[in-house]
Amino acid sequence: MDVAGFFLALAVILVAAKLLGELAERIGQPAVLGELMAGVLLGGSGLGIVPHDGVPGELLHMLAELGVLLLLFEIGLETDLREMFRVGPASLAVALVGVVLPFGLGFAYWAYVPHPAAGAGDLTTAAIFIGATLTATSVGITARVLSDLRRMSTPEARVIIGAAVIDDVLGLVILSVVSGIAAGAAVTLLGVLWTLGVAFGFLAIAVLAGNFLVPRLFDLVVRMRVRYVLLVFAIAFALGVSALASLAGSALIIGAFAAGIILSGTNQFDTIEREVRPLASVFTPIFFVSVGASLNLRLLDPTSDSASGTLLVAGALILIGIVGKLAAGWAAPWARMRRLVVGVGMVPRGEVGLIFADIGRRSGVLSDEVFGAVLLMVMTTTFVAPPALKALFGGAPAEL
Amino acid sequence: MDVAGFFLALAVILVAAKLLGELAERIGQPAVLGELMAGVLLGGSGLGIVPHDGVPGELLHMLAELGVLLLLFEIGLETDLREMFRVGPASLAVALVGVVLPFGLGFAYWAYVPHPAAGAGDLTTAAIFIGATLTATSVGITARVLSDLRRMSTPEARVIIGAAVIDDVLGLVILSVVSGIAAGAAVTLLGVLWTLGVAFGFLAIAVLAGNFLVPRLFDLVVRMRVRYVLLVFAIAFALGVSALASLAGSALIIGAFAAGIILSGTNQFDTIEREVRPLASVFTPIFFVSVGASLNLRLLDPTSDSASGTLLVAGALILIGIVGKLAAGWAAPWARMRRLVVGVGMVPRGEVGLIFADIGRRSGVLSDEVFGAVLLMVMTTTFVAPPALKALFGGAPAEL
Repeated sequence: MDVAGFFLALAVILVAAKLLGELAERIGQPAVLGELMAGVLLGGSGLGIVPHDGVPGELLHMLAELGVLLLLFEIGLETDLREMFRVGPASLAVALVGVVLPFGLGFAYWAYVPHPAAGAGDLTTAAIFIGATLTATSVGITARVLSDLRRMSTPEARVIIGAAVIDDVLGLVILSVVSGIAAGAAVTLLGVLWTLGVAFGFLAIAVLAGNFLVPRLFDLVVRMRVRYVLLVFAIAFALGVSALASLAGSALIIGAFAAGIILSGTNQFDTIEREVRPLASVFTPIFFVSVGASLNLRLLDPTSDSASGTLLVAGALILIGIVGKLAAGWAAPWARMRRLVVGVGMVPRGEVGLIFADIGRRSGVLSDEVFGAVLLMVMTTTFVAPPALKALFGGAPAEL
Repeated sequence: MDVAGFFLALAVILVAAKLLGELAERIGQPAVLGELMAGVLLGGSGLGIVPHDGVPGELLHMLAELGVLLLLFEIGLETDLREMFRVGPASLAVALVGVVLPFGLGFAYWAYVPHPAAGAGDLTTAAIFIGATLTATSVGITARVLSDLRRMSTPEARVIIGAAVIDDVLGLVILSVVSGIAAGAAVTLLGVLWTLGVAFGFLAIAVLAGNFLVPRLFDLVVRMRVRYVLLVFAIAFALGVSALASLAGSALIIGAFAAGIILSGTNQFDTIEREVRPLASVFTPIFFVSVGASLNLRLLDPTSDSASGTLLVAGALILIGIVGKLAAGWAAPWARMRRLVVGVGMVPRGEVGLIFADIGRRSGVLSDEVFGAVLLMVMTTTFVAPPALKALFGGAPAEL
């Protein structure tokens, strides 16, 4: 394996992410939009610098996972658990509506409306897949936008982050179901409940146990003398909890978020947060660049016969994808919050939507044309949400 | 690839490194000794937790390379170039004697002294390999020990670091020669001079060009608004220069050291150093644990027939390895420095010695018994130097 070549690609990725991030900020957009664009530019659609297969691809994938893990860990550290519980019911309502409505609309559109790009496969299975792709919310992208805008402490941000985390858990359930369908396996209710239980159970047990044991543990750690022992233990803790979450059938980033919430209860949380931040700021751009790089524009061939059909389907999916999530903003009538902001915050599909779409394409459930349309939907929702959030929150960052 | 399993192993590696590092410090030893021991404990000789082959092995290798790269980058940042030039001739003399003497003694011992563990292969080739293994100096280990003891700003430290970097360059030359011999290829004088010229030329050009261009570049970078832009550009710069050094036929860590020296001339060097430090402290332990893990004690089978022969050869090699490098401390009679400290600082072979030995074993030039003896020499010199340096510098760290 060529370590030097990989490090060179990494240097280009970091520089491009920061340069386009800066450009995005200068024209009044969140920096993450620039990092996604850097990914498109350096990825398969552009210069092809981002490693995507073989060992270098695995290495970049691991660093990107480390990046999103550190991002969610940092967000967990900044999360006030009591505030999260206060907005919990609102988050749950927003998450549920934001999953049920897009799924229902997407399924109905594919199963019952006649359209030109219908594939040869089973119509119901394809409809389930299209519905599933529409349910995702990218907690990473929304959280980064809110963080770029320095709005993480607003009630809207808390509802959105809570709902996006719940969406991630629901996403795992949906993913296990659609993967089962794609593999032709029978989907059992027990299996679905198990995935659901493990994900929520992990979060609950981790937070409860963590609140008793971990602060005592870190009071011991801080008495050690070796350099940056607190930071290294915090990172090891985040890695460990993430890995356990994943091995228990949940997602890495849910574990990272839980680890952050747990450590926010330690007496050393200030130091940890201050030292994690530079680390996170080096690795999170790698994640967003790799999300951008996986949006391969070349798959959308405008000269092909089916291009107009693909565009028509894409238009419908984008409409459903935006309306379905926007409506989720009105799901909690009792909550005092700006509903449009919450709705917009739920719109970006990001990497979660890409994972669904990719399973559908590789299993043959989605034809290349339909995959192209789904890809356009994921891209549009991902790229439209950051500037929309920025416009809604308006003007300069709240606190600097 | 199983990202979760890899992250779990990483968490264990980080925690073990810090716990044994702490233990080492508590019993009056440098922390790096504990990290090496953590590697032995978690590696092939012990619990087998450190990934060593397949994709996880490649991932760990990359993170370890990132760790030693960040370490040398940090050391470069702390290096005063004028001071380095002042001790330059002393460093060069120490490096040359520390290469020529161990090589000559090792070669003579193998070629002319009768010994029980002689392999079946060509005696001269084996003697060249054994001499080459004895020439290496691990700049990483010595630098870490000096940094643990907070003695990086002493004249001895500057001479040692300078000599160790020169040794790394000479090591590259020797490596290309011995690899050529192992592959049965003809070794040309031109090829040797080319490797030598590229390594020194790279360092010189990088430092000269860097002193004019890079400070101006970073004065522009610092005017950007995005989060931690200075740190990310500094890391990208270190990665880029390291990769270019490696692609030009030199070593990654020489590029990283050059990048650090260049950035130490920028107006923002304080901020860069402060922000790089937490990053380096997370990744450098991974390097030392992986060096420790590659010392597979199981290769030294005490029940085998040839064990006594192996031990006899190992004893001779250890003697040559220590005496040859200690003598290098007296190579610069004009320099005002504690010669024993400099000699001891040159002793650890670390990962460089392992690389030589491994090439010899895989090409069949070194028999398993001789390889075991070389391994014992590498281990002893690596583990003996940190406590010896600590004892010589004595007492508490200089500045806290």
